[in-house]
Amino acid sequence: MRLYTYFRSSAAFRVRIALNLKGLAYEPHFVHLAKGEHRRPEYAGIAPQGLLPTLVIDEQPISQSLAIIEYLEETRPNPPLLPKDPLGRARVRSLSLLVACEIHPLNNLRALTYLRQQLGQDEDGVKTWYRHWIADGLAKLEADLARSPDTGKFSHGDAPSMADCCLVPQVFNAKRYDSDLGPYPTVMRLFGECMRLQAFDRAQPSKQPDAMAS
Amino acid sequence: MRLYTYFRSSAAFRVRIALNLKGLAYEPHFVHLAKGEHRRPEYAGIAPQGLLPTLVIDEQPISQSLAIIEYLEETRPNPPLLPKDPLGRARVRSLSLLVACEIHPLNNLRALTYLRQQLGQDEDGVKTWYRHWIADGLAKLEADLARSPDTGKFSHGDAPSMADCCLVPQVFNAKRYDSDLGPYPTVMRLFGECMRLQAFDRAQPSKQPDAMAS
Repeated sequence: MRLYTYFRSSAAFRVRIALNLKGLAYEPHFVHLAKGEHRRPEYAGIAPQGLLPTLVIDEQPISQSLAIIEYLEETRPNPPLLPKDPLGRARVRSLSLLVACEIHPLNNLRALTYLRQQLGQDEDGVKTWYRHWIADGLAKLEADLARSPDTGKFSHGDAPSMADCCLVPQVFNAKRYDSDLGPYPTVMRLFGECMRLQAFDRAQPSKQPDAMAS
Repeated sequence: MRLYTYFRSSAAFRVRIALNLKGLAYEPHFVHLAKGEHRRPEYAGIAPQGLLPTLVIDEQPISQSLAIIEYLEETRPNPPLLPKDPLGRARVRSLSLLVACEIHPLNNLRALTYLRQQLGQDEDGVKTWYRHWIADGLAKLEADLARSPDTGKFSHGDAPSMADCCLVPQVFNAKRYDSDLGPYPTVMRLFGECMRLQAFDRAQPSKQPDAMAS
């Protein structure tokens, strides 16, 4: 299988973790987002949405990180990244979507580019925006995780799940923008647990071949 | 079951459609987003993420629209809102997430409030931002839908799916901001098909009791 990826894409990072957790080998194809390589016609032929990541698997391309992880779960179920019970699955999906829908979209590259180019924001303005959505979103994530008896060693129980595949890249982004992470002790405890695992560590941006080349 | 909803929330609109398609009756509880009622402590007790919608079902609250729809699908499978084959399911999820992660988050109320209050944008500036993300996102959705032989009378084949539950509210938002919808003929054809169905029509913002009251 081929993964179209960019070291700094946190959506691609989620999928790299999931593939590693499931022990699935993949061939990385590097698409340099900051250079706009995702807008090239040859990539549109593979991924009509023009976004990263795309996984070509079972001879079909799939885009959107959570759709990819759900597909892996349905076709390569072990080890599982979703619990068996429907309420547990709903909880893991809800935590995952909180990151994927409420935090990350506001801070991705094209939103920041709009702030710079169309709204004339300088780096301070961009950083303030970035940290605002990190703080807003991580506070919601912390509230949800801290309150639930289902939070264990990982976001849901004692094994990593799709929720952890989303949490970890989001914390990496927060660190990159020097966000204050003090108010989110549960999030940071889970982050620490995850990062002890090779599957998470090997997926991190700085360890990708395209990071080393850039 | 109880649905915490607001007539204009397009995430709540998705869930209203899904409940209607599945023929599930629910008791609506109105939370006025524009008045900040979602930030009241009594709502935090139900929904720690503090976001709409929340469905209380099987005595548990579930937040995040797509997590709710997936839960309904797993526990009330007929009629289905996801196809049976894993690749079809991945496609429907990918189309749904394209709306839920790439378009809607940039245009929700709190992003627009930040533009007005922190970045000093006037209504023209806010509208330009709004329409920019509609155009960017619907172009991606159009490209994906127009190219695929799996697009039928609805987004995936000839029955409505979760993808249509996401597409329709997004088009409502686009219309509300007078976006030019000419460049998206496939999206608009699907929108038209959906709106012939009572399940979609009854879920629309203007037909909600809280719209009529406000």
